[in-house]
Formats: sequence, structure tokens, C-alpha cells
Amino acid sequence: MASSNNNQDHISELERMRHTASHILAQAVLKFYPDTKLGIGPAIDDGFYYDFEFAEPISEEDLERFEKEMKRIIDENLPMKQSFMKRKDAEKYLKEKDQKFKLELLKDIPDKEISFYITGDNQFVDMCRGPHVESTGKVGAVKLKSIAGAYWRGDEKRPMLTRIYGFAFDTKKELNNYIELLAEAEKRDHRVLGKELGLFIYSDLVGKGLPLWTAKGATIRRILERFIVDEEIKRGYQHVYTPDIAKIELYKTSGHYPYYKDSMYAPIKVDDEEFMLRPMTCPHHFELYSAQKRSYRELPMRIAELAKLYRYEKSGELSGLIRVRSFCLADAHIIAMPSQAHDEINRALDLIEYAAGVFGLEPNKDYRYRLSLGDRSNSEKYFKDDESWDFAENVLREVLAKRDVESYEAPGEAAFYGPKIDIQMKNILGKEDTAFTVQYDFVMPKRFDLKYSDDKGEEQEPVVIHRSSIGAIERIIAFLIEKYGGVFPLWMAPVQVKVLPISDAQADYARQVTERLQSEDIRVILDDRNETLQYRIRDGEVNKIPYMVIVGNKEIETNTVSVRSHGSKEIGLMKIDEFVQALNKEIESKS
Amino acid sequence: MASSNNNQDHISELERMRHTASHILAQAVLKFYPDTKLGIGPAIDDGFYYDFEFAEPISEEDLERFEKEMKRIIDENLPMKQSFMKRKDAEKYLKEKDQKFKLELLKDIPDKEISFYITGDNQFVDMCRGPHVESTGKVGAVKLKSIAGAYWRGDEKRPMLTRIYGFAFDTKKELNNYIELLAEAEKRDHRVLGKELGLFIYSDLVGKGLPLWTAKGATIRRILERFIVDEEIKRGYQHVYTPDIAKIELYKTSGHYPYYKDSMYAPIKVDDEEFMLRPMTCPHHFELYSAQKRSYRELPMRIAELAKLYRYEKSGELSGLIRVRSFCLADAHIIAMPSQAHDEINRALDLIEYAAGVFGLEPNKDYRYRLSLGDRSNSEKYFKDDESWDFAENVLREVLAKRDVESYEAPGEAAFYGPKIDIQMKNILGKEDTAFTVQYDFVMPKRFDLKYSDDKGEEQEPVVIHRSSIGAIERIIAFLIEKYGGVFPLWMAPVQVKVLPISDAQADYARQVTERLQSEDIRVILDDRNETLQYRIRDGEVNKIPYMVIVGNKEIETNTVSVRSHGSKEIGLMKIDEFVQALNKEIESKS
Repeated sequence: MASSNNNQDHISELERMRHTASHILAQAVLKFYPDTKLGIGPAIDDGFYYDFEFAEPISEEDLERFEKEMKRIIDENLPMKQSFMKRKDAEKYLKEKDQKFKLELLKDIPDKEISFYITGDNQFVDMCRGPHVESTGKVGAVKLKSIAGAYWRGDEKRPMLTRIYGFAFDTKKELNNYIELLAEAEKRDHRVLGKELGLFIYSDLVGKGLPLWTAKGATIRRILERFIVDEEIKRGYQHVYTPDIAKIELYKTSGHYPYYKDSMYAPIKVDDEEFMLRPMTCPHHFELYSAQKRSYRELPMRIAELAKLYRYEKSGELSGLIRVRSFCLADAHIIAMPSQAHDEINRALDLIEYAAGVFGLEPNKDYRYRLSLGDRSNSEKYFKDDESWDFAENVLREVLAKRDVESYEAPGEAAFYGPKIDIQMKNILGKEDTAFTVQYDFVMPKRFDLKYSDDKGEEQEPVVIHRSSIGAIERIIAFLIEKYGGVFPLWMAPVQVKVLPISDAQADYARQVTERLQSEDIRVILDDRNETLQYRIRDGEVNKIPYMVIVGNKEIETNTVSVRSHGSKEIGLMKIDEFVQALNKEIESKS
Repeated sequence: MASSNNNQDHISELERMRHTASHILAQAVLKFYPDTKLGIGPAIDDGFYYDFEFAEPISEEDLERFEKEMKRIIDENLPMKQSFMKRKDAEKYLKEKDQKFKLELLKDIPDKEISFYITGDNQFVDMCRGPHVESTGKVGAVKLKSIAGAYWRGDEKRPMLTRIYGFAFDTKKELNNYIELLAEAEKRDHRVLGKELGLFIYSDLVGKGLPLWTAKGATIRRILERFIVDEEIKRGYQHVYTPDIAKIELYKTSGHYPYYKDSMYAPIKVDDEEFMLRPMTCPHHFELYSAQKRSYRELPMRIAELAKLYRYEKSGELSGLIRVRSFCLADAHIIAMPSQAHDEINRALDLIEYAAGVFGLEPNKDYRYRLSLGDRSNSEKYFKDDESWDFAENVLREVLAKRDVESYEAPGEAAFYGPKIDIQMKNILGKEDTAFTVQYDFVMPKRFDLKYSDDKGEEQEPVVIHRSSIGAIERIIAFLIEKYGGVFPLWMAPVQVKVLPISDAQADYARQVTERLQSEDIRVILDDRNETLQYRIRDGEVNKIPYMVIVGNKEIETNTVSVRSHGSKEIGLMKIDEFVQALNKEIESKS
């Protein structure tokens, strides 16, 4: 395969091994289908892939044959040797082998001497810069994973090739552990669970990337929204509502248009005006701030909103609730004197850590901080103002130094208007993404001419801190579905309790219990369907309902309920008052 | 003036009198400005107006002169006589008088004999079909109100005329009462109070008809939203979230596009798709319903949402929060078996009456029901299906008959998909508008192919009941601001309590009191500004804060607060616990 990287010393042993595994796959494929045309075959995060053009469609059964053959090649422990050909010879060789894709790649290689890798005694030869491990025997445990379609060079106008994915790890044990983890992760996939638990749907008529929340999913969303709004208000935020559309002039003033033009929806032309679906909340909040003269006494002013935002993502980039075309951000803009910035950033991080803690996320384990800095030399991407960058970076560094959470610095990851602290969250497979962010902004105040009068009555320019507390509601819910595997803590669970009469004889009592729980604002359903108790219990387990209460004659006599929690854990008989009290305590604790 | 109404028997004495008042105004105007061209001069709700083209601009002072002259003409008690001219003579007469607008009106009158009204001994002659009172002396009390611009025939391409408005009532007392009521209403105008109390703003950069809610206004909105969502969930509604945009195909399926095309925003074209800002929620809820097979056991399914809707109103039609370009509707669609419709409509009205009751609105006084029926002969405007219309109208009639609220029938006011019950609300001036609505729909189920399987497993078509409980949040808040005159009941008040230390000596204690109230989730502010107590109290009154507590040394010694309610009502010393208890009780009662 071709690689465009010239300095390859940094390539790890693991990566080399995975790359070699891709060559072994190609060798195995050619054994069964000698006319196959080869595309590219790189190492990836958990293994490798190789793209092929087969003369006839292959099946899942072929994968088994290929895998068996790969293992045989590994056992043979064939040496992997690099060899160079002159461009002319390389071209001649590839033409003889009828490898049209390799020929195309050859044209893009600038070198005079073209690198090839030879497996064993010419058992397999591939144009490739490497590097590889010494011999096929160094390849640990492999397993072919799946077949997918992939356009040649990612271009939908070029032929569709067949991509075969494989896992490759150093040992059989590591491979098995990973496959187990993956199976667990797949069961927890929020797209799978979202469907199984009936939390949200998509509709072709409504459009891609635009989820519709069912009553159950909406319950989780509403609980999270109220939780964060109430918490923010307690912490001195002013929660506002501003329109989701505005005239295009607003985004021209802010610089978002044309800066963010590519990810914005097209303008809506009515009469002689153009409206935009907003991609950001900032300019809306600045309009509220500037609606009247402001005094230093009003600062810091913390303007927050559950803001619906619209960004047009390419359909290939959409992914469940993680990447959608309209999302609701727990957004805020803190307008402050520069001297207040340190304290306000600290408070914003306090809030983020508090909310993360409520969700059961632990610092250093589930997340760490990234200080994202600007590249001062790149004045196209970063606003030129060294003094302000220095000041802002120092503020952020000082804040981080005093906090008990791991952090690292990432140059070139800042916003164009200033540096930021990103909260990097790990998912179940250890993949890290930015979940929340706190950003220092010394540019927007100028663009929007934000001012306050200081204690001498003189006009001053404030700074703006952009922050999200629990991020986009859609994304945090996707994350929590996966974290909890669909078993939500009681305070968030769409249905908290299911009441099951053993038979019709307990129908009245079951209804009384249900009504009692309802009157205590417990989210409860009565399942008195004409099905066996076992069936109804299993249904409750599948739906991951935290508590089921079963009522039979014994319960009626003693005025109790028989309680079991999710996962078939019997708790036993409880007086109803006792049960209500326990539920309320658990809900209150948000655990 | 010209009238196009042939049968004029139904025109009330009051209306005739107001029409005569407009002739008297024109006569007075011609006395001072004989070259003035006359437009039209009808009676209106509280008086009359007349449109004029003056040779030179007039001023407010002219109004005084005109009014004085009008009173003189009334005192003269001149007879009002009808007289007819042949078309030719009428044309000749109007040409002599150089009345170009009247000449234009003449062309539209089909009659052979043209009606004129003559005041006294030809003191004033106007082409006019009448009717009028017998003589100018029958006109009671008049008062000229204002001058406004108005395009001739409402056409912005025609000349701008000067419209003079006047009040006319039978007696001086009625006139004065009305003017007082109007002044009161103007003080209560939600646009005026919204600004004074700082509840919402508009921004030129964001756009017309798109309010931005400040923290104070947003508090009222959030409280109302949570109130209605919680109440609806208690009553068995499923609250969902669906996207505010969707592909144009969705609205083509529903028939809203092109039916509502004129009031919809233009499509948003991205790639090869077109998205619309939604004008209605119904099709979104139908997509949720149809995402899986439904059984009769699941019905009635009550799908509710706080739905943002977008309708592009002409800028001239925008009015404060009453008519905006984006609003949030407390919307729901109840999908039910036809046999459940009666009960569901009844429940929807129960909810509406309950919510109205919480807001202090009384049936028969503040609102009444209107049964809006379709015109069966108009198959363009109303879906043709006599049997379904009969059934639906009977259901609505039966529901209304059993309720203890005034109602009346209004033919030709139904939706195209079925009849409806409108809740007609009166504002402070007695003007009636539709506030909430419950609609029976037998058309959409067909268009969206909604189905359920009945108890025999056979597919059936449900009916849909569209309803709004508290209507659009924007509009109900506008209404409540005016109803309460800005003095919100405690549970809704953006700021519930203001704490005022008499001097710096009580600063600590005042802070303790404030924190204690905050810890009880009371919305409280501490006003320890360096201003006199009197000034700060007045400020609290202007801001219509329900309670102020004043703390001096006496209060510190006795661990009390001195409480006063809005409107300078002294309540006296209270222990803090006692005060908190009283507040919580009042909040709980929502009164």
C-alpha cells in the first residue's frame, strides 16, 4: 500500500504489525480470487482494513476462508522485506499484474525509487512504503470483522470497492478482551438502546438527523433540562429565551457568517429580508445585554439559555444523537470585567464538575481537562492580539493549576476569539471526545461594541466567557444511555415503577397502589395485561424499569408490596409508605 | 359616504348616530378647510372616523377647533335628510364640488338612483346610503381622538389620506367612562408594561416579531410552561419533543403546503432537499404515532408538546406578543376511537377551564364558547363528507350542552378538516378573541393513513382532536400582563420578594434574610443600594414586586421582618419562619 508519510520512525510496533496483517489479508484474498484488484490497506485503531475490487461478490463465508488462510501465513512466519524499483519498472510490474488502482497511486508518489514490500519468497508483493514487522510470525492474534462498501479514494463518483475490516492484537487474550468489550459497547450503543427502549425515532418525511423524542425519551430530556436550568439559576445565571431565527445581518455582525457559513442552513428569503436558523447563541445574548446601558455593578452577568441550534451536517457525518442537524445546547455567556474572568471560569468548571458528578462521572477516570491554545503565528485562524492571548492563557492556566483534575495543553485547538478549556470525556471503548467547554473571548465584545461603565463612570470593554454546562442535550443523553446501558438512575428513569397484580383478583389493590404512587409524583405504570406474571416481569426487565412491585393476596392482607429492583434483585415485602419513602430518598439523592 | 350594504334595517341606533357624527366632522372640517377632498367616514366600535385629503398638513390644534364646531352643529339640531339624484346629476354635482374620491366611489355603486344625505339646509351634503339619525341633535357626546395616516382604499400605491378618529357615545357619562377605561387599558397594554417591567425586548438586528425574553419575562414563561406540562402529564398526556423543521414533503402530505403556504416561511434549500420551519405540529405527532403498529388498547393517545411554530405575518399585522412571527404553542393531538371523542373533548375543555381558573378567568364573564361550524355548501373551504360533519357536530353540541358555560354557534368558522369549539376571551375593553381551541378532525387520519387494530384485530381509522390548552405562551402572557396590570400573582412573579435594609447597619441581617428565602426557592433580591429607603420602596412599587421586607434594628432584635405587599399595604412584623410559611402557602394556592 502507498503511504504519504516520509518520516516513519514514530510508527509504533503495534501499528506496523497491523499494517502487516493487512498485507497478509491481501495475500489470502489473492489465493482464492487471483483476479482481485487491490486498493489500499492501512492499520486502524483496533486492527486494519484492505479495499478490494472483486470480479464477483463475496460472502461472509469467504471471510472464514480468508481468516483461516491468514493464520496459516502467520504460522509460516514469512519474512517481510522492503525492495525498491525504478518508476518505469514499477509501472511495468503493476501493468503486468493488472493492478489499475495501484497504477493510479503510483502517479501520486513523487519518489524516484518506488518502495515495495515482499512477503516471503514473492508469495505476495505490494507497492508500499511500510514500515512492517520483520516477518508474518510477528503478527499476533487476528480476526476478520466485517465487509463494507467504500468508494475508491472516498469519491462517490469512483467505483465502489469491498472493504474487509479485521482486528489485530498482540495476543489472543487482548483480542478476546477487546471483542468482548466491543460486544458490550454494541449492546450499550445508544442507537440500539434508543430503539429497544423506545426513546426516540427518526422519520424519513421529517428528515435525517432530526430525532423525534417519544414520551419516554422526552421524560429524560425534560428532567435533565429542568435539572440544569434550576442548578444554573441557583448559581446566579439569568435564564432567558431568544429566537431560533434572526436576520442574516446579526450573523454578519458577529462574524459567524460567512465564517460558519458552510455549516449553516441556507437563508430563508421572505419579502426583502433574509432569515437564518441560528448556529450559535452568542449574538442573541449580546443583543439582550446591549438593550440598555450596563454598570459594573451588574457584572458578571451570566446569561444562559437552553438554546436550539442548527448546523447542517453532511448526511454521512450524522450519527444517532451524537451528531444531529438541530440540537439543544445548555449554553451561556458570562459578560464580565477582565478581573472577574478567573473566578467566573473557575465557577463554570465547578458547575461542570458538579453536573458530571451527579451523572456519576469521575475526574481523571471519565474525563480530564485540555487547555486549547491558539497558534500565534497563524493570524488567519486566530485573531491577532498577543497581549490578550497572553492574559487569557495565563488566566486559564492559573485556574487549571489549582484544580484537582488531570490536564494537558493542545496548541492549535483554540477558538478564533481566544483560548479555551475543553472537558475531554472517554466513552466505554476509551475514545476521547470534547463534551463541554469553557472559552475565553476578547474578540466578540469589540464586534458587538459591548460596554459597561466602571466605578468612575467611564466606559470599559468587558470580556465574554462562552460555556456549556452539560453540552448539547442530545449528546449528553446519548452518552448517558451508553454509560448506564439503558438502566437509568431512578431520578431520570422514564418509568420508575411497574405494578404487577399476580392475577385479576388483585386488580383493585394494584390500582390503588398505582394511584398512591402517582399521587406522590412517581412515574408508574400498571401492567394488568392478560399475560403470565413471568412474561410481564421479563418485559419489565427488558424495558429496564428500576422497580417492579408484585401484588398478590399476601400483599393485600398485609397492606404491602413485594419489591424487586432491575436485574432480578428481590428486595422483599415493604409497607407502601416505606416504599414511597425509599423511592423519594433515592430520587432526591440523584443516585 | 358609500355603503355596499343593501339591507340596513339591522343597523342599530348607536351605529346610525356614530355615522351621523362622521358627517358632522366632515362638515366641521370643510368649514375651516373648504378645499378638502372627502374619502369615506364610517361608524366604528367606539365612534367613527373620516378620511380626508387636506391641501396642507393639519395639527392637533385643528382637532380642538373641529370638535368645538361639531358641538355647535349638534346644538343646532339640524335635520338629516336622504335625497336621491340620477347618476348623471350625481356625477355632475361631485365634479362641481371637485370630490375626486367620491367620483371614484360612484363608479362602484350599481344603483340608478344615487343616495345622498343632506344636513340641515344644505350645510353639508354627502353621497351616502345611510342610515342616519333624524337630526344632528340626536348625536350624544363626541370627542375627537387622534389623527392617523391611511391609504386610500387600503392600497399602498394610492394616496395617503389623513384619518381623523372620534369617540361617540349616547351620553357624556358613557363617553367619560369609556375614555377612563381606555386610559386604564393603555396603562395595562402589555407592550407598555413589558417595557416598563423589563420582560422582553425587540432587536432590529434579530428582526420584527421575534421577541427576546429577559430573565424576568423568561421566569414567567418558564413557570407557565412547567405548570401546563406537569398538569397535562397528570391528565394522561404524553409530552414529546419533535423538530421545529422538517422536509417540505411532510407538509405536502399533510396538505398544509400549499394550503398554508402564504403564512409559511420560504423553504430552506440545502443540497437537494428543502426544509420548512413548521407552521403546525400535527404532522410531526402523526409520525410518532405511526412509528409502530397501534392497538385500541393504546387509545386515546394524547400527544402533547410545547411546540415552537413559525408563521410569517406581514409586518403591519405584528402586535407585541399577541401576533409574532414565531411562537410556542401548548399543543396536543389526541388520537382516539370515534366512540372516545365525546369524552376526550370534554376532558380537553375541563383542562382549559381548570387552567383559565388558575389564571383567575371566569366562565361567562371572561370567556364563552363558540361552536364553529363548516359551510357544507362550500366544498372548496370544507372537506366534503356530510356524514362525518353530522357526527362531529353532534358530538361537539352534546359536549357543550352539558357544560355550564354560555355558548353560541358560528357558521363558516370551522377548520377545513372539521368543526371546533373556540374559547372566546374578552379583553379589558370587552373585545373578544379566540384564545384556545378544541378541534375535531376526520380528514388528517386519512391523509396520514393513521390506523389502529380494534379488539377483533381489524384495522380501523381513528379521529384526531387538535387542541391547545393555554394557547400560545406569548399570547397568554400578553393577556395575563394586561389582566393583572403587571401585578402578577405570587407564584408567577419574576421577583417575589425584595429585601431592604434601612441602613448599612442592617446589611448582614438583610443578607441572612435573603439567603434564607433563597434556600426556600423564593425568588428574592436584596436592594442595599446607597439610596434612601423611600426611593428603594418606590422602585419596588414601580416594579410591582409582590412583597417588600424592610429590616431595621427593631427587626434584628426580634428576629423578624417588616412586611408590606404591593400597593403600599403594610402587613407588619412577622417572624421569618412565619413569613416563609405564608409565602409558600400563597405560592401553592396559585392565587
